[in-house]
Amino acid sequence: MAGVNIAIIGAGVVGSELISQLTSLKGYIEYNVVILAESKHVLRSEDYSPLNMSSWKQNLAASSKPPMSPAQIADFMKKSPLPAILVDNTSNQTIANSYPIFIKAGISVATPNKKAFSSDIKLWNSIFDYAGKPGYGLCYHESSVGAGLPLISPLKEMILTGDEVLKIEGIFSGTLSYIFNEFSAVKPSNTKFSDVVKIAKQKGYTEPDPRDDLNGLDVARKVTILARISGLPVESATSFPVQSLIPKELESVSSGDEFLQRLPEFDDQMESLKAEAAKEGKVLRFIGTVDVPSKKTSVKILKYDFSHPFASLKGSDNVISIKTKRYPNPLIIQGAGAGAAVTAMGVLGDVIKIAQRIAH
Amino acid sequence: MAGVNIAIIGAGVVGSELISQLTSLKGYIEYNVVILAESKHVLRSEDYSPLNMSSWKQNLAASSKPPMSPAQIADFMKKSPLPAILVDNTSNQTIANSYPIFIKAGISVATPNKKAFSSDIKLWNSIFDYAGKPGYGLCYHESSVGAGLPLISPLKEMILTGDEVLKIEGIFSGTLSYIFNEFSAVKPSNTKFSDVVKIAKQKGYTEPDPRDDLNGLDVARKVTILARISGLPVESATSFPVQSLIPKELESVSSGDEFLQRLPEFDDQMESLKAEAAKEGKVLRFIGTVDVPSKKTSVKILKYDFSHPFASLKGSDNVISIKTKRYPNPLIIQGAGAGAAVTAMGVLGDVIKIAQRIAH
Ligand SMILES: NC(=O)c1ccc[n+]([C@@H]2O[C@H](COP(=O)([O-])OP(=O)(O)OC[C@H]3O[C@@H](n4cnc5c(N)ncnc54)[C@H](OP(=O)(O)O)[C@@H]3O)[C@@H](O)[C@H]2O)c1
Ligand SMILES: NC(=O)c1ccc[n+]([C@@H]2O[C@H](COP(=O)([O-])OP(=O)(O)OC[C@H]3O[C@@H](n4cnc5c(N)ncnc54)[C@H](OP(=O)(O)O)[C@@H]3O)[C@@H](O)[C@H]2O)c1
Repeated sequence: MAGVNIAIIGAGVVGSELISQLTSLKGYIEYNVVILAESKHVLRSEDYSPLNMSSWKQNLAASSKPPMSPAQIADFMKKSPLPAILVDNTSNQTIANSYPIFIKAGISVATPNKKAFSSDIKLWNSIFDYAGKPGYGLCYHESSVGAGLPLISPLKEMILTGDEVLKIEGIFSGTLSYIFNEFSAVKPSNTKFSDVVKIAKQKGYTEPDPRDDLNGLDVARKVTILARISGLPVESATSFPVQSLIPKELESVSSGDEFLQRLPEFDDQMESLKAEAAKEGKVLRFIGTVDVPSKKTSVKILKYDFSHPFASLKGSDNVISIKTKRYPNPLIIQGAGAGAAVTAMGVLGDVIKIAQRIAH
Repeated sequence: MAGVNIAIIGAGVVGSELISQLTSLKGYIEYNVVILAESKHVLRSEDYSPLNMSSWKQNLAASSKPPMSPAQIADFMKKSPLPAILVDNTSNQTIANSYPIFIKAGISVATPNKKAFSSDIKLWNSIFDYAGKPGYGLCYHESSVGAGLPLISPLKEMILTGDEVLKIEGIFSGTLSYIFNEFSAVKPSNTKFSDVVKIAKQKGYTEPDPRDDLNGLDVARKVTILARISGLPVESATSFPVQSLIPKELESVSSGDEFLQRLPEFDDQMESLKAEAAKEGKVLRFIGTVDVPSKKTSVKILKYDFSHPFASLKGSDNVISIKTKRYPNPLIIQGAGAGAAVTAMGVLGDVIKIAQRIAH
């Protein structure tokens, strides 16, 4: 039976679910995990025979082996007798920075980690100038935007077959989707912006400090990734206009709790935006945009007609609209853009696609 | 450079566009066309060297070689020195019936032709009991439902990674999408059903005899395909309830023109359905449904709230909603479900995915 050897870094929310899905796979390819690493613990096969994954959690916690650096992991995987895959389930920048080492060593990468694809364009180039060329590793990152939604693979395929992206618009943050769907619904309501943010935090939808969602940086990272795939060499996620939802005065308050306490002072600003939109029969949404012909990317609040697909969005769904030469009436993809099961599914889909290409 | 040898059958609307996209591909795989066949003409390489595709249209028309049967094509491709792919761009049942011969000979199949996947379940089984197993060909058919929309590959991937489909609902016919979007819009109108059908025909959206769209069979075929992928062994596209939009009295009138002439006699029926829906704040849509837990499939007119994504559909777009264990809030995919460019793109995407797995 054909097989691959896999190094998994990160076994948190997404990583544990990935392991659970991976070990339940049926088929004609053997997926052997030979490294499983967190920041302080590591399990490593000595002779590339598969690790026993039935009690990985206890084994990993009990392991006293010293952690391995990305370079050490690449070194080990390079000598793998079977084709090798790195699965990075962290949000770590240092690991992301090391992808070129893996790719150049012929090791393929599958990851939901946005960092490598949304930081300096030089890192992107040093990955994609090589990934997929004969002798180099592949690089798949479906879950880095929209989690398991079929987005990055179809978009790359459209472009590969000769289509040209004109405009991408979307709601890329589950947290901000929820906040705006509740705050500015088609049905009029008196909901206050600060109250919705508070509820989102109580529901566990936000980062521990909600400002980490409201600053728009996560959306900017996703826009950067989609722009680059579409052919715009965006310098980095901070090189274009991003509207922060954090009032200037609250940028530097010391804690997330203090921020939430003072946010109501600024409700009037959001309220008047909402009222203005409602008067035009529109709702507010927090939108990432890639405009290819004008070479512009942006992240900001935009207004949409009640009848627009973005207006009827529910819960914390993501939605993306892709207008191309072949889809002048845009292709729209909508659904959960976060959560362990769907994110891990996206990563596993990448692992499978890679394995189908390289396993022997 | 790695490569594949391809036999293309069918060079009509989709086939010609496929050839144009295929010959523009850039990358690290050589896509060599060694057979190009229509029903009366065929171009064939003698020694598996690639055909010159720069003037294929003239060459094919001028060719006086006798047409090849599917068995003859399979025989030729079986001996190909490079991994072999059959691309079937016809809607022919006999060619579809022969896929098992190809698959068993190790030749992969990529096709937008629904016939093999929506006829007798025995044919489906004799394809998918083998396709993808070591030594057998692969079988990809993205464009058989929703043209180039990313649908079948993502759905198969969801299931492969352990997700379970609960319900699929969709608008799968571009023609019927257009007709219902115009007839029963959120904005009230006095548009008559028969008039919309006439305009659809004038715009070239319908088959030459509009009854071939209105009988619902094309939708039933697509529902059959999605149901089978989701795990329901539907016997055939005619083994479950399909609502025909052809009034009984007009089923046997001799021509499409006579049909269109007499259709206004039956406008009242559709009109009262529409009025009833409008009273409830709903629109009418022509829907294919797969309900997995209850093991039921159907094709019929259903009513949707003005705020439902199906209600705001535009033009002749398709839309599909997939509710699964992992997507309780359904995954929705929307966009053009017909047209040469997007259909050929779906087929070419399949060819690329196959080549990435088998080329050497
Ligand atoms: N959760 C979602 O819904 C979602 C959706 C889309 C994308 N993503 C992306 O998926 C990735 C993982 O998210 P998550 O929610 O699973 O995060 P998480 O629960 O915080 O897990 C992170 C894991 O990575 C490990 N890790 C961190 N730094 C490391 C290092 N330097 N070396 C080795 N291991 C390290 C952590 O181990 P330690 O505890 O030992 O540090 C932990 O096991 C992130 O890139 C995230 O953006 C997540
Ligand atoms: N057009 C769309 O928008 C669309 C969308 C989704 C799916 N599809 C599917 O794509 C397929 C092709 O559609 P199309 O619109 O391209 O049809 P088309 O324009 O009618 O072309 C059919 C082609 O197949 C050839 N053909 C038919 N029977 C044959 C046979 N027995 N042996 C060899 N060649 C044969 C025809 O050649 P001759 O003229 O010599 O018979 C012609 O070149 C169909 O299965 C259709 O359902 C089409």
